[in-house]
Amino acid sequence: MGLVVQKYGGSSVADAEGIKRVAKRIVEAKKNGHQVVVVVSAMGDTTDELIDLAEQVSPMPAGREFDMLLTAGERISMALLAMAIKNLGHEAQSFTGSQAGVITDSVHNKARIIDVTPGRIRQSLDAGNIAIVAGFQGVSQDKKDITTLGRGGSDTTAVALAAALDAEVCEIYTDVDGVFTADPRVVKKAKKIDWIAFEDMLELAASGSKVLLHRCVEYARRYDIPIHVRSSFSGLQGTWVSSTPLVKKTQAQGEQQVEQAIISGVAHDTSEAKVTVVGVPDKPGEAASIFRAIADAEINIDMVVQNVSAASTGLTDISFTLPKTEGRKAIDALERARTAIGFDSLRYDDQIGKISLVGAGMKTNPGVTASFFEALSDAGVNIELISTSEIRISVVTRADDVPDAVRAVHSAFGLDSDSDEAVVYGGTGR
Amino acid sequence: MGLVVQKYGGSSVADAEGIKRVAKRIVEAKKNGHQVVVVVSAMGDTTDELIDLAEQVSPMPAGREFDMLLTAGERISMALLAMAIKNLGHEAQSFTGSQAGVITDSVHNKARIIDVTPGRIRQSLDAGNIAIVAGFQGVSQDKKDITTLGRGGSDTTAVALAAALDAEVCEIYTDVDGVFTADPRVVKKAKKIDWIAFEDMLELAASGSKVLLHRCVEYARRYDIPIHVRSSFSGLQGTWVSSTPLVKKTQAQGEQQVEQAIISGVAHDTSEAKVTVVGVPDKPGEAASIFRAIADAEINIDMVVQNVSAASTGLTDISFTLPKTEGRKAIDALERARTAIGFDSLRYDDQIGKISLVGAGMKTNPGVTASFFEALSDAGVNIELISTSEIRISVVTRADDVPDAVRAVHSAFGLDSDSDEAVVYGGTGR
Repeated sequence: MGLVVQKYGGSSVADAEGIKRVAKRIVEAKKNGHQVVVVVSAMGDTTDELIDLAEQVSPMPAGREFDMLLTAGERISMALLAMAIKNLGHEAQSFTGSQAGVITDSVHNKARIIDVTPGRIRQSLDAGNIAIVAGFQGVSQDKKDITTLGRGGSDTTAVALAAALDAEVCEIYTDVDGVFTADPRVVKKAKKIDWIAFEDMLELAASGSKVLLHRCVEYARRYDIPIHVRSSFSGLQGTWVSSTPLVKKTQAQGEQQVEQAIISGVAHDTSEAKVTVVGVPDKPGEAASIFRAIADAEINIDMVVQNVSAASTGLTDISFTLPKTEGRKAIDALERARTAIGFDSLRYDDQIGKISLVGAGMKTNPGVTASFFEALSDAGVNIELISTSEIRISVVTRADDVPDAVRAVHSAFGLDSDSDEAVVYGGTGR
Repeated sequence: MGLVVQKYGGSSVADAEGIKRVAKRIVEAKKNGHQVVVVVSAMGDTTDELIDLAEQVSPMPAGREFDMLLTAGERISMALLAMAIKNLGHEAQSFTGSQAGVITDSVHNKARIIDVTPGRIRQSLDAGNIAIVAGFQGVSQDKKDITTLGRGGSDTTAVALAAALDAEVCEIYTDVDGVFTADPRVVKKAKKIDWIAFEDMLELAASGSKVLLHRCVEYARRYDIPIHVRSSFSGLQGTWVSSTPLVKKTQAQGEQQVEQAIISGVAHDTSEAKVTVVGVPDKPGEAASIFRAIADAEINIDMVVQNVSAASTGLTDISFTLPKTEGRKAIDALERARTAIGFDSLRYDDQIGKISLVGAGMKTNPGVTASFFEALSDAGVNIELISTSEIRISVVTRADDVPDAVRAVHSAFGLDSDSDEAVVYGGTGR
């Protein structure tokens, strides 16, 4: 039995009862002969409460101090979890990100891990302890300041430690039973996926699936660390995310699958807005100057579409999508660059939604795209933008159309489970 | 203008408003040209809330993890305080005890400081920052584990940093205006003391005065760091605790004072209990074996009195006082050693109080002791035990008699202020 890294999110350790329940699960893994490293998030609403406090003392909390503040959250949960484990008769030691050797760059609030040197964790494990590590945090290489890793930081901590410690698996415990073929809140017949390749999971994450964040999957893929996403409530087998399927197929089955499109799931996202730059002179360098202005404002964009230029005017429209939260900043950046770029006007639309179909072999199966569009058409959903990759088709529609569109596509590709009972979502009604 | 260390307790930073108020006071000191190091405690009830959580997951929280948990409290307050200062347009950086170089032994929950290496604090100050340091915490020299310093830990952190940084003064901000000649809640006419010598302050602290703890004063005395105890609410001059008086006296006055008893104040303490060991054989080694049993149980005792042996029986009684919280443990320890020691019975009394008069030149002024006892007698207070030192007389009485006794002694030694108005106690009604 090898080393297992387990990660528990804030909802799993929301209160003392949750902490005690998680402690039992951890001890179970230890009893099964594993060396166990646990990465834990802050309890329930702790982080939000700390952010509230920060906003009360300062309208614009500074990065370094904000990170110092937020890291108090995991400090509390990890110490309590270690106590709960010791109370079950097993030895446990908690470690901050810094103590665990999570070395980051100096970009506060969204630092990137640049090295992991888990010497103290290894020592603690070798001494027979269960090691509890604070998720979401590290220490900057140059200034030795405390940093936080931003969204999905605890998952990334877990995968990074799993890689550095050469773990068998990184188990991500959450409040759902795994990754589903669609959001079960929208599609009642969504099925739990038993196994999904890193690449497909990356596309699902990029397309709005919230269970695992892109960043964490990317890290796991680079170091080839299998992730097992599962519920901390139900204890059922969840979804394995790895480079090779769990169960070896026969040669024939394997070949068959490579030739056919294998649809992993349908993702949706209503957190984006669409910006259209109207009346852009259709000449080289125009698009570049628009996206340079956006990039200089440090805004990540998602889909980009340029319409065919109207021959009579020599003008074209360029549309792109981006997180709604960045909308104001993007409009401001473009307005400032208006004279230099020379466009007519800007349109901003935050009532859009994105539906994505993810699966291997899509490009080589033209029928997939056709079926996708037919399903949307049958559901009466109008398509505004289209973007495709090797293993994904995404469309932008009205936000209101998203639930119908997701259900229609899910059904059209035969993803619906036979009965509603197969779907288990959540464990405590959260 | 030199370096100033300021320490703010939990009641001064109980909420966002408190933090903003304290931030202004800190910035004021910086504007006056000082380099400023701030030591801060956890906000208001944070520590109690964390202890509650710990008790919910484990009946006996372990030392290492308990310290990890509690230190989250100062992490929150110090980060918020740094943010609030930056919001006023000044640069501030917060540091954990470990980052500030507070090196301790490995005794969790009540670690002792063994070294202070404030290299990062010095750097931060030299870069023009205000440095905010978490009170009450450090890092163990051998294991590099997070430790807490126990009661009065934040005051001790402040004094230790002041010593290591060669500060001009260590300002202890609290919710009272300084050290008083008696507890103003008991004696309405108690006066604020402008200056008091380290030795007298040590005796007051040992005798029940709560404003400064013995440990912190001891540290300040060893390194000769002047302490200024003052209110974070009123901003008035408080009490200076140092080796030499603030204001130089003329030669004549000075000599006069050396010859006369200078009474600093009256302290009282109702947190102790009295144990009487009845019927101890009056032979060498008996007292030693009693106090060895107590010491082995790691109980600190205060006063010890042995009655004259009754010649007829060859038996004597030995009484001592100790914190009520240690009472059970002491009785158990003595019962276990009963056969070995050979005493008749034990008596336990937790309805006692201690009144102490502290001041220089007491031993050489027999009149002081006489006046003290006369004052108690006039107030109808019966004395149960007496203990004296070079600069202190303490008596044990019934707990109920303490308020009257304190007022009587305070008045008899001319400590009463002329009017009630001179006494300022507290700032927010706490």
